[in-house]
Amino acid sequence: MSDVFRIGLIGCGTIGQGVVRIIQAEAGEIERKTGVRLELARVVDKDPAQAAKVDVPAALVSTNAADVFNDKTINVVIELVGGTTIAKDFVLAALSAGKSVVTANKALLAKHGKEIFAAARRNSCCVAFEASVGGGIPLILPLRTGLIANRINAIYGILNGTCNYILSEMDQKGKSYAAALSEAQAAGYAELDPTLDVNGTDTAHKLAVVASLAFCCDVDFGALHIEGIDQLDAIDLAAGKELGYVCKLLGIAQRTSDGISLRVHPSFVSRKHPLASTGGSFNAISVYGNWVGHTLFFGRGAGSKPTASAVVADIVDIAIGNAGRTFTQCRMLGDVTAPPKYVPMEQLRSRYYIRLEVVDRPGVMAMVTKIFGDRQISLKAVTQHESAAAASDGSAMVVVLTDVAQEGQVQAALKEIGSLDIVREAPVMIRVVEEHEEYPT
Amino acid sequence: MSDVFRIGLIGCGTIGQGVVRIIQAEAGEIERKTGVRLELARVVDKDPAQAAKVDVPAALVSTNAADVFNDKTINVVIELVGGTTIAKDFVLAALSAGKSVVTANKALLAKHGKEIFAAARRNSCCVAFEASVGGGIPLILPLRTGLIANRINAIYGILNGTCNYILSEMDQKGKSYAAALSEAQAAGYAELDPTLDVNGTDTAHKLAVVASLAFCCDVDFGALHIEGIDQLDAIDLAAGKELGYVCKLLGIAQRTSDGISLRVHPSFVSRKHPLASTGGSFNAISVYGNWVGHTLFFGRGAGSKPTASAVVADIVDIAIGNAGRTFTQCRMLGDVTAPPKYVPMEQLRSRYYIRLEVVDRPGVMAMVTKIFGDRQISLKAVTQHESAAAASDGSAMVVVLTDVAQEGQVQAALKEIGSLDIVREAPVMIRVVEEHEEYPT
Repeated sequence: MSDVFRIGLIGCGTIGQGVVRIIQAEAGEIERKTGVRLELARVVDKDPAQAAKVDVPAALVSTNAADVFNDKTINVVIELVGGTTIAKDFVLAALSAGKSVVTANKALLAKHGKEIFAAARRNSCCVAFEASVGGGIPLILPLRTGLIANRINAIYGILNGTCNYILSEMDQKGKSYAAALSEAQAAGYAELDPTLDVNGTDTAHKLAVVASLAFCCDVDFGALHIEGIDQLDAIDLAAGKELGYVCKLLGIAQRTSDGISLRVHPSFVSRKHPLASTGGSFNAISVYGNWVGHTLFFGRGAGSKPTASAVVADIVDIAIGNAGRTFTQCRMLGDVTAPPKYVPMEQLRSRYYIRLEVVDRPGVMAMVTKIFGDRQISLKAVTQHESAAAASDGSAMVVVLTDVAQEGQVQAALKEIGSLDIVREAPVMIRVVEEHEEYPT
Repeated sequence: MSDVFRIGLIGCGTIGQGVVRIIQAEAGEIERKTGVRLELARVVDKDPAQAAKVDVPAALVSTNAADVFNDKTINVVIELVGGTTIAKDFVLAALSAGKSVVTANKALLAKHGKEIFAAARRNSCCVAFEASVGGGIPLILPLRTGLIANRINAIYGILNGTCNYILSEMDQKGKSYAAALSEAQAAGYAELDPTLDVNGTDTAHKLAVVASLAFCCDVDFGALHIEGIDQLDAIDLAAGKELGYVCKLLGIAQRTSDGISLRVHPSFVSRKHPLASTGGSFNAISVYGNWVGHTLFFGRGAGSKPTASAVVADIVDIAIGNAGRTFTQCRMLGDVTAPPKYVPMEQLRSRYYIRLEVVDRPGVMAMVTKIFGDRQISLKAVTQHESAAAASDGSAMVVVLTDVAQEGQVQAALKEIGSLDIVREAPVMIRVVEEHEEYPT
């Protein structure tokens, strides 16, 4: 005789429908494997037609979330509403009602994780959120348990499938950003309003969630440096390709002797970099631990089936009792850890790809390279290309690859260069990200 | 006040020393994160000098494993002796004494897992074995929890770092098998007696462990088809490379409508295959679930630090209580599951690379291709190369790439071809492994 575990699902969109489908199809198999019988007790959505799409019996469907919170027979609440307003109210209401919560909501956790985890602890509940980062990829789980012996030195993640799809199309087919975005929307990999994906916010939400766990600290979302892919020009991806690079939007969390560095930005990585081969809408996350060395987790970072796979795993983990025990016993979340010291972006040390559109006349190169030299920025390579507009207006495109330099100095140099009257457009800068050292000495 | 969790370590070789080092360096950090204080209670090795290498206090060192089993204050036993004889006695003795066991011993689990798991269950203990497959890569954990909602359709693993290192050297530098093996031994990636690595046995042990978990069945190690890399010729790796392939030793577990297929063999994969880019001594394991789709886990499959990282994670998981709960509640191990139906190797459907050394005279190609045709084996490509010996003895090298065909028919054709007097050497065959379909319809 198995324990019945009754589920209140709030939000029956793409992922919620996936959860319903898994429970319909796999409840028997999951019960056979785990001794837990999952039962859908209530499905709430403002649009009842959503639940009907996946044949939820009408008697279980409601438009009122209170029907979940007030139902004493419901063991767990699944929040798949999204956003940080109503979703927050629902999660806090569920916890107040003594029900543990499973959520895929990275925005909510990145911004209000501390408050939510504290509420869970106060009510002797737990919050499970495997689905919030990397879709179906088990990543939260290893950070909390499988890699527990390690101090995590760094995390590098391709955390947004929409951006990765767009960048892959731009890289492989030479498309413009706008064309690749349209293509992604047509293929269902980008939403109609893709703003939060392409401006880096979604990646930053996910990075905040994993960094908090990996470094056991209370991450302030405002401390993240965030740049998206929406300003990228195909010219730079092509120029980077010539230099052996491919462009990825990376979420990067590094532990340094000066503190924690958290940043999201387009990154040129070598074609041999472990993340270079992650194409299309896939996600991949490299985790560097001081004992385990480099581990990488790859898979579908979004979509109904993969994300629902992670949600259901969390439900089972709560039902068995492991999620609650880990939540209670491990002091790794924002409500029971301290804020970290952050390394300001200006102190970052990196290599830089820089593109300048300059007037093609004698002395220009000398002016530009002098500015870099004055700021102790060594150049690894400088190449002058014929600009697209060269034939008509006598301009030239100069691509500079710096040696490792300090971000603050590079920013200052770019500002100075940008103000020169021989420079026709604001300089373009893309950071070059090397493979992290596996076992730093 | 944290719970103290006392550890009896049996076997203080490479991995055991890594475990000691982690506990020495990280006990405080692990206690802070998990509330569990790990304490080394006893270190047993037939050679006490091993423990001295990592500064284990002499008072804790013993040459007698009974000092662990009889110590009522010891909470968990770590078996890192290796092999399937004494190690088995130790594990059963520990379980009889009511102590849970952590082991990295894939050979032991592949051959005696059923008996050991049953003994653990009888004694209300558990056996944790994350370190047995993929070294530090968390893989057992996701198969037992993070991917629990899925029916696993297939697993493809690069599970032996020694073989992968040798194959990478052969592929990239055109080395012979013997030269690459010597190189691997010199670099510390291969043992002095590498037999169990290079003949595929180690990969097969690991495959048996993960397949049992993934398919929730009692795998009979004898049912695995096993071929190693020790018969590989650099000629074939070069010919495969020309066709766009790289050779990997893969452990493959597939669920088909006819049953479970379990096999270890050198495999040609396309350069775009997800496992193609896993070079050197790294491991990588692709898992295909019916909901999550394709997930891939990558990292260090061996070595002191990574493997010890997994061992310590298991210790913490037992200390917190999660490992025991999962072990007790989930019916996924050999002692509580049924044997699967196996698909005989002859029924495998695959593409094949075949190399023949033939006498270079008219009609030879016709004879060879007729034999394939008679057995309904379609050929995708046939190329005749000048053999290394061609100039002197008039022989030719013929490389055949088949379409998808049945293994039994291919084996029969090769036997027939091999018996022709125009064929100078036994035909060479390497299976071509395609990327698994992510969501089969």
